[in-house]
Amino acid sequence: MTAQPLRVAIAGLGTVGCGVVDIISQHASMLQRRCGRSIELTAVSARDRHKDRGVNIGAIDWEDDPLALTRRADVDVIVELIGGANNIARDLVERALKNGKHVVTANKALVASHGAELARIADDAGCRLLFEAAVAGGTPAIKLLQDGLPGNDISRVAGILNGTCNYILTVMQQTGRHFEDVLLEAQALGYAEADPGFDIDGVDAAHKLCILSALAFGTTPAMEQIHCEGIRPISAADMQAADELGYTIRLIGVTERRPNGISLRVHPALLARQTPLAAVDGVYNAVHFRGDYVGDVFIEGPGAGRGPTASSVVADIMDVARGNHGLPFMIPAAELSEPDILPMTSHEGAYYLRLNVRDHPGVLASVTSIFHQFNISVARLIQYESRGADDASIILITHHTREHCMNQALEQISSLETMLSQPCLIRMESF
Amino acid sequence: MTAQPLRVAIAGLGTVGCGVVDIISQHASMLQRRCGRSIELTAVSARDRHKDRGVNIGAIDWEDDPLALTRRADVDVIVELIGGANNIARDLVERALKNGKHVVTANKALVASHGAELARIADDAGCRLLFEAAVAGGTPAIKLLQDGLPGNDISRVAGILNGTCNYILTVMQQTGRHFEDVLLEAQALGYAEADPGFDIDGVDAAHKLCILSALAFGTTPAMEQIHCEGIRPISAADMQAADELGYTIRLIGVTERRPNGISLRVHPALLARQTPLAAVDGVYNAVHFRGDYVGDVFIEGPGAGRGPTASSVVADIMDVARGNHGLPFMIPAAELSEPDILPMTSHEGAYYLRLNVRDHPGVLASVTSIFHQFNISVARLIQYESRGADDASIILITHHTREHCMNQALEQISSLETMLSQPCLIRMESF
Repeated sequence: MTAQPLRVAIAGLGTVGCGVVDIISQHASMLQRRCGRSIELTAVSARDRHKDRGVNIGAIDWEDDPLALTRRADVDVIVELIGGANNIARDLVERALKNGKHVVTANKALVASHGAELARIADDAGCRLLFEAAVAGGTPAIKLLQDGLPGNDISRVAGILNGTCNYILTVMQQTGRHFEDVLLEAQALGYAEADPGFDIDGVDAAHKLCILSALAFGTTPAMEQIHCEGIRPISAADMQAADELGYTIRLIGVTERRPNGISLRVHPALLARQTPLAAVDGVYNAVHFRGDYVGDVFIEGPGAGRGPTASSVVADIMDVARGNHGLPFMIPAAELSEPDILPMTSHEGAYYLRLNVRDHPGVLASVTSIFHQFNISVARLIQYESRGADDASIILITHHTREHCMNQALEQISSLETMLSQPCLIRMESF
Repeated sequence: MTAQPLRVAIAGLGTVGCGVVDIISQHASMLQRRCGRSIELTAVSARDRHKDRGVNIGAIDWEDDPLALTRRADVDVIVELIGGANNIARDLVERALKNGKHVVTANKALVASHGAELARIADDAGCRLLFEAAVAGGTPAIKLLQDGLPGNDISRVAGILNGTCNYILTVMQQTGRHFEDVLLEAQALGYAEADPGFDIDGVDAAHKLCILSALAFGTTPAMEQIHCEGIRPISAADMQAADELGYTIRLIGVTERRPNGISLRVHPALLARQTPLAAVDGVYNAVHFRGDYVGDVFIEGPGAGRGPTASSVVADIMDVARGNHGLPFMIPAAELSEPDILPMTSHEGAYYLRLNVRDHPGVLASVTSIFHQFNISVARLIQYESRGADDASIILITHHTREHCMNQALEQISSLETMLSQPCLIRMESF
């Protein structure tokens, strides 16, 4: 170990960037003892030099152009906190690596979209590219996989990867309120963005899952092939029915190795209440790994926020400071294979279906006869009494079946003239 | 990264040792891709050369004397799986380090008792000393702390660290059966040793907690100062009462920084049912970390067993193979401080107390008057109807109070002539 300080530059001084500045200054001597060398902030770059950020950056060099950081001789590591996949962030990371700088980033979109190419550049340059903060905020899920479980062949990674969705679903579950209502509250509280689509449509979770899948299976991240559904269709009625049946609805990301390929999907799911993921509440994230020797390991922690995300960024910086080795996706980028992602139609599992029907004789018979036609067997059926004049709710839970059968059945059921609205179908998971 | 194979010797070929041999041979090419070099088993040592272990060690050199492994030029890492704190295991680890070999061990007794001294030897020799498998089996709690959360000042580590106790308590909770009965079953199933004291009296959990405490707080392991209580006093009546009150009883280990020193303790505790540790069932282990920037992070996984423990040993071997740096207790051994361990009498918290009393008028009055005398305020009180002729059960839950007050009150309560048996006192934890 060398006694030379590790010289760090930060591009992007939003909440996370300021958190990183804060940790490095507040814990300077602790970090030095834990790394065998000091960590020094030599330069920063952000949009507005004069904004009051609540952290003291007066003694650190300022660059208006983030790319200037990559040309500085007094920088060993560049921390990229600008965000975005196809903008200056990508350019910055590429140039930094090509100029022999290690890179630490929290940019999930960038890694999910261009991770394989960036890893190749890092490998060629002999530089580290680390992105712990890109997945699950303060929860060190990547290090758990790479450093804690590397002796295992991983067969499945499943997680709750978006705190905004988990917060909304938790509040819906606890209060019985409607999605739109809770979303507005989450926006007011700062848990959801003004433009919430990135979170609630599952895109953010998909980025994180792509990264975990690439790491677990040694494949290039497959952002364009992921199946992604969000939580907009989840109603208070679904929450209530799930609860009565002993389930919780959560937005989950799952990647698993199947006989013919890899399943890679983000969607809401009914989880049995006693399973660990079902118990993850609020803005927390959690990841569940299954390895061939270790079995099941579960980690839960804060999924976002200034301190937690900065904690993960600093862990990466310290990994570099300690002089550790390690490749972005655990194996050489040149050896990452193209994943064979299975279409969702080949998915198999149990399903929850909620139908809003006219309360007429024969409705149940037509539904069950369609199920029979597609070989779908019903595990549970609950018919709720009409609340209004002429309508009723039917909740069905199927046994294990194929998604393409379910889709065909659903198409026929939707076209029944007794259907009052679009059926709501939610997959069930048993882990 | 070098292309030279990492040459490994194993001392001790019990179930874990054979698991390590198994992973290294089954996953040879995967490990090589993930480490940038191959891992080769060059020599082994165990008691009986001719025992059938179910793994092929025919091609590996055999040493009758484990110490001979430390003298071999073709060994880079020695994996110590003999166990025991004051026997040949200690000698082996010392000599290995002094001879420039890295050491990986699963030996919690050794690290808890002599960790600081061994770390000093490792630091002097410039060798790695790793012991992930010594804490929580397959659950990589040490790496989570060292690599995942190193930017945090840790204020508390709390965990379920003994699978045998957790299995027994889980079965007691689920079936209402008695401790002795469930212990016998656990022994028959191989979850408890013939001589179960090491597990059920909390010693094993204490070893693990000492190691976590030393890592978290940068102190020497304080095995001789830990407060350690086991689960023998927990009765079916306590389990039932806890359940009715919304709690689960678990054996926990807690180390936390308090204003005047460090609290370091292993004991049964009532945990509110919705807390993560309360939901840990069976032979699983779990650890809950609190850091100043990250907040709370929770990890759960298998606490013992061939595959899981071997998974942690192999993760350590791979850490060496990758050429990573890292000190046994995160900071230089010479900088580890003597911890200031607080006496249990200074503990503060809520308490559960079960009294078995003669069903006479005035019993409750004498108990509550003793509580009043020591300024202990009662949060809940339940009196159960007599089941037998003349006896009754009283369950009391206190508000936050001091352990030395509680002890004095308990002494007076125990000496009441209406007490039919020794009162049962269990601490409550709110995390």
